Order: sequence, then C-alpha cells, then structure tokens
Amino acid sequence: MASLEDLRAQIDEVDARLIDTIAERLRLVREAAALKAEHKSAAYSKERESYLLHSRAEMAEKAGLPAGLIDDLLLRLLRESYKGKGPAAYACLKPANRPIVIVGGAGAMGRLFSDYFKASGYHVEILEKDGWEQAPQLLGQALAVFVSVPISAAAAVIADTASFIAPDTVLCDFTSVKGPYVKQMLEVHPGPVLGLHPMFGPDIKSLVKQVIVSCGGRGEEQYRFILEQFKLWGAKICTCAPDEHDEAMSIIQALRHFTTYCYGIFLAQLRPPLQQILDLSSPIYRLELEMVGRLFAQDPHLYADIIMSSPRNAELIEAYFASLKPQIDLILQQDKEQFIERFMQARDYFGPYAQKFLQDSGALLAKIQDDWE
Amino acid sequence: MASLEDLRAQIDEVDARLIDTIAERLRLVREAAALKAEHKSAAYSKERESYLLHSRAEMAEKAGLPAGLIDDLLLRLLRESYKGKGPAAYACLKPANRPIVIVGGAGAMGRLFSDYFKASGYHVEILEKDGWEQAPQLLGQALAVFVSVPISAAAAVIADTASFIAPDTVLCDFTSVKGPYVKQMLEVHPGPVLGLHPMFGPDIKSLVKQVIVSCGGRGEEQYRFILEQFKLWGAKICTCAPDEHDEAMSIIQALRHFTTYCYGIFLAQLRPPLQQILDLSSPIYRLELEMVGRLFAQDPHLYADIIMSSPRNAELIEAYFASLKPQIDLILQQDKEQFIERFMQARDYFGPYAQKFLQDSGALLAKIQDDWE
Repeated sequence: MASLEDLRAQIDEVDARLIDTIAERLRLVREAAALKAEHKSAAYSKERESYLLHSRAEMAEKAGLPAGLIDDLLLRLLRESYKGKGPAAYACLKPANRPIVIVGGAGAMGRLFSDYFKASGYHVEILEKDGWEQAPQLLGQALAVFVSVPISAAAAVIADTASFIAPDTVLCDFTSVKGPYVKQMLEVHPGPVLGLHPMFGPDIKSLVKQVIVSCGGRGEEQYRFILEQFKLWGAKICTCAPDEHDEAMSIIQALRHFTTYCYGIFLAQLRPPLQQILDLSSPIYRLELEMVGRLFAQDPHLYADIIMSSPRNAELIEAYFASLKPQIDLILQQDKEQFIERFMQARDYFGPYAQKFLQDSGALLAKIQDDWE
Repeated sequence: MASLEDLRAQIDEVDARLIDTIAERLRLVREAAALKAEHKSAAYSKERESYLLHSRAEMAEKAGLPAGLIDDLLLRLLRESYKGKGPAAYACLKPANRPIVIVGGAGAMGRLFSDYFKASGYHVEILEKDGWEQAPQLLGQALAVFVSVPISAAAAVIADTASFIAPDTVLCDFTSVKGPYVKQMLEVHPGPVLGLHPMFGPDIKSLVKQVIVSCGGRGEEQYRFILEQFKLWGAKICTCAPDEHDEAMSIIQALRHFTTYCYGIFLAQLRPPLQQILDLSSPIYRLELEMVGRLFAQDPHLYADIIMSSPRNAELIEAYFASLKPQIDLILQQDKEQFIERFMQARDYFGPYAQKFLQDSGALLAKIQDDWE
C-alpha cells in the first residue's frame, strides 16, 4: 500500500490534469458561444443542458462515480459559461438606427439592461433628470423606451416621457406594481405598451434563468422583439395579467419583506450577540439568519417602496397581523393539540410542495455547507 | 473555425476525460482515507482543506480559469469524499469491552449516532421502551449512555436511566433544552455528566462541519473522548454554558420556527395558488417560500416540542408579538421616514454581518440557480 505522501503526490498530479481539462472545456465552450452568436441562436438552451446532464450522468455511472456528483460539477461549469459571455456574444433581433432609450438608465437596474442591449448591438441612450433637456430629441426618435425609476417617481416620469415619443415607439416600464402603471401607459400613449417587472436585483451576474414578468398592454407584434431579446439573454419570461401580478407580489414581496423587516427590528431591540448565535447555528439556522440580515445591507428606500407600494399590501399586512393572535395564544396555553391541528391544515395547503421544498432545501444545505466552516 | 458539431464532439471527448480523472481522484482519496483510519487520524482536516483550496486556486489561475470556479468544484469533490466514508473509516478513541448504550436509539437521531459509533468499532446497544426489561443489564455495564428521546419524555427517562448505571458511566443527553436537564443529570448521577445538543436533523448525509453543542456537567476527563470522537467524525464542537445555550436557542430555534409557522398558517388561510407564486418568483423569493414550506413536511410534534419547550420561549414570543404593532402602524400611516430610521437602527445592530450575509447569500443564490429552471 502506498504511503500518504505518495497518495497526496498522485492527487496533486490528478488535480493538475483536472484543471487543464476544465480549461480546455471552457475554451471549447467559448468557441461554440461565438459561433452561436454569429448564427443568432440563444445564449441558453434548455434542451442542450438536459442532453448534457443526461449523457454525462450515463458516462459517470459507467465510470463508477457516485450519483449526483457529475450533475453538480457540470451545472457549476455551465454557470461559468453563461456568465462568461462577452459583449459580442448576443444577436440583435431588431437592428434599427433608432435608439433604445432608458429613462433612469444611470440607476443600477437601468445600467444592467443598458449593458445587455449594448452587448446585442443596439444603440442605447440614457436619459436622466439631469439631462432632461435632451428628452425631446432622444425620446422623439426612440425605437423603445424603458422607464426605470423609483416607484414614487414612476407616474410623473411616464407622463413626461409619453409626451415626447412617437406613436410607434414601444413604451415599457420596470415598476414593481403593474396594474396602475400599465393602465396609465395605455392612457398616455396611443402606441405599443409593455409593462415589465424584472424579478431580481441589479446585482445578478447573468440574466440566465432570471424571471421577468411581462404584462402586455397593446401592440404585441411591435413589442415582441423585446421579450424575444430577453429570452435570447437567457431570461425566463412569465406572462401575467397586471392585477394578477400585483396580487401575487403583495405576497411574494411585500408581506415577506415586511415580516423579515419586523424580525430584524426585533432582534435589533433584543441585541443578542450575533457571533455567538452564528457559532451555535447549524447550516439551516445560519441560512435563516442570513436571509434576515441580508435585507439590512440593502437600500431602505427600495424596501419602503416595495412594502408601501399599494393599499393592497397594507390590507394584507393587517390581515396577517390579525392572524397571529390565535397562534400566540396557542403557545401561551401550551396547546400542542391545536398547534398540530393547524400545522396539518397548512401541510394540506402546501400539498406535494412541502416535501419538494424539504428535499430541495436539503440538497441546497448540503451544497452551501461545502463553503461554511 | 470549427463547426458547432465539431466543437460539440470535442466537448464530448473532454467530458469523458474529465469523468475519468474524477474517478481516479476519488479512488486515490478512498485509499488515503483507509490509510488515515489505520493511523487513527481525523476524517476531516481543516488544514488539509485550506491547503488544497489554496494550491489548486494557484494552479487554476495559471491555467487561466475564472476565479472561484476551482474552489466550488473542489469543495463539491471534497464533500463526496467526506460522505463516502465507509463504516471502517473511523478510529476508536476509547476501545473498551463495555457498550455505548443509546436510550431511544431506534429513533432517527439515535440511529445516526449509533451508526457512527458502530463505524468506529464501539459496541453499541439500543434500549427502547419496548425492551426496558433489559435496562438493568445493559445500562449496568455501559461505558457511556446517550438519552435520545423526545423532550416531553426526557426527565422521566433520565431518572430511570440514572438508577441503573454505574458511578463511572458517562451520562449524556441530546435534549434541545440544556439548563434543566444538565441540572437533573447532575442530581441523579454522581459520575460524569455531559449535556449535548446536535444542531441538525437526523437526515444529514455526514457529520462533517455539523455543529454539536457541548454543555459539560462534571468529569471532563471521562467524557472528553466523546467530544474527541465527534471531532474525528468531522463535527464542530461548540462549548457553552447550559443557560447561555438555552437563551440562544429561544432565538435560533423557537422564535424563528414560530414565525415561520405563523407565516405558513396565514398562507394556508389565504390559499394563493402555489404554482403561480413559484412561476413569478425569482431565486431569492423561491428560497424564502421553500424555507416556509419545508417546515410543514416535517414532524409537527418536533416543532411543538421545540417551540413550547420552555417558559422562556413563550416570553420571547410574546415580546416579539408586542414589538409588531408599531411596525404595522408605520405601514398603515405610510410613514417611510420612520420605516427607514428603524431600518438603519437594525442595520447598525447587524453591523458588518449584514454585508457579509448579503454576499454569502448572493453566492448561494448563484449556486442554487444552477439547479432551478
């Protein structure tokens, strides 16, 4: 039997080979991406990804690798190749000599989309409050305009913007509430209207697999190229009626952020020593705490805007608060039986998702533990 | 320039080489593990892991790989080798012909530790309510006894157990509340006492990097081998006074689970369509929802026990509830200024952790997105 030193020297050698092989793979993928961009095919193909995962899993099984290992490694490699796309890598689906104008384009979200449009060969113009004297000229020739401003300014900016654009310009907004703003855009602009809600922060590394909600207003034929362009960048388009969107967002964003906010405020009043809490936390509890703490590293105005963006949110939050009292009473009365009965009702509501969530988050925890000490 | 088919054929070839190289690496690591077990050295070495990550990152940089890629791939490979440890892979730090007895050892947590002790060459006996007639004989010769039963039964089982064990037997419990049970164990047993709280569920794949809280009661010299054995299995031992532990757990477990429970109960009353919510959710929101839903796939008794385990928890939950009203009022009054002021106070409390949590969870989200469509 070899000594530990011998074995470690062999592992060093194998790792060097591993690294060279990975470098070679990335090189080939880059070549393929350049070729795909030339042929205007999409950055991300679900079919190709499924094929790769499936065929490699078969190869790995034959080689005696444990189940799931090659999938994880391959997905990590694929992420690298999505992320690595350079500015020349996307096709332009609507070549035109009219610009894409992003109103509020100097903000983080505006900049993200500006970069993507530029990387696809569009002529992009940024319009800010500061340079508003250029509005008539820039907006007048725009192919499409994206209003990307804080929600508190959205109504005024949409009205101003609409007054300068041509009847065939596609008017879009990125506001996180869709009902009132899609309605307003339809009122102030006779041409194509598209409400959009990018469901991510501007700090993402790539649009691949990110959700953009699309609430079409008018002129599907004229605005379609925008959604197709988003898909080409790898985003997932979710089409939805404006009111349906708003109802779901009250839950997904407003209520969830509000409860996280409240939890953080309470901890800040209690002031338990954070490092001790972390030391005592296994991965699942650490993740719970991270999800709370991360909110407070971000822009408070953004969260105030999201939570207070509609009367519907306030109603939902009030209803949530009212629902708590019976649960508090359970704990004070140590009523385990009722606790379990309500638990089972909620399990019933979550249905097969509860088990799926447990499995998915279990896999996730195994993964993040690699990183944490 | 090669055609896309050519490139894909080359990628196929590279992937085959990649898989063979990985298989070879796993083989070498298995050999090294067998060798380490022979020499009774630990399953997991932080130093070796740091060295590997550091040296491979250097090699990868020279080969032109993007930053962070080899770290992620290597950590995933290391996880495989921790997980893959077979039953013969651990050294026994306290060879003895007296058994380790796990009271409640047929439960999931008891079974987990039983497997690990067996894998380290200990003689393990399981004692359950059903076979309690064996208690005098099994407990009488025990080297160490672990009480692993639901908290509602803990006091009675500890008392019964103590009545049969020898004065030099190490008495341990796995109860999630430590103050009262460490105190009880010290009262009913004159010998070595060790309170333990494994901070994970029994569904984990490996003990590597998992936290076990240790609240020593008496006889450090006699119980030390148990903690050393846990470390050898890769666990992280966090030493803590029983009351300190309980105070932290009220926050880490009871309050957090309670708020998650309440959120799930409210959703179950509201009944929004889950699939639509998921479709509209980007990774961060999906993760938030998973963290809620996963609770309801688990044992309701366990959560009732954790939340109702001490009067301290009820007090904390009441205080939390009382703290919510001012926040609800903010929303109803649309008081953004106050919202932001309190936000900044909480940011202040989280200090540098807020930014760290944002970064860590950002990296995590990038990672889990690989898996989600």
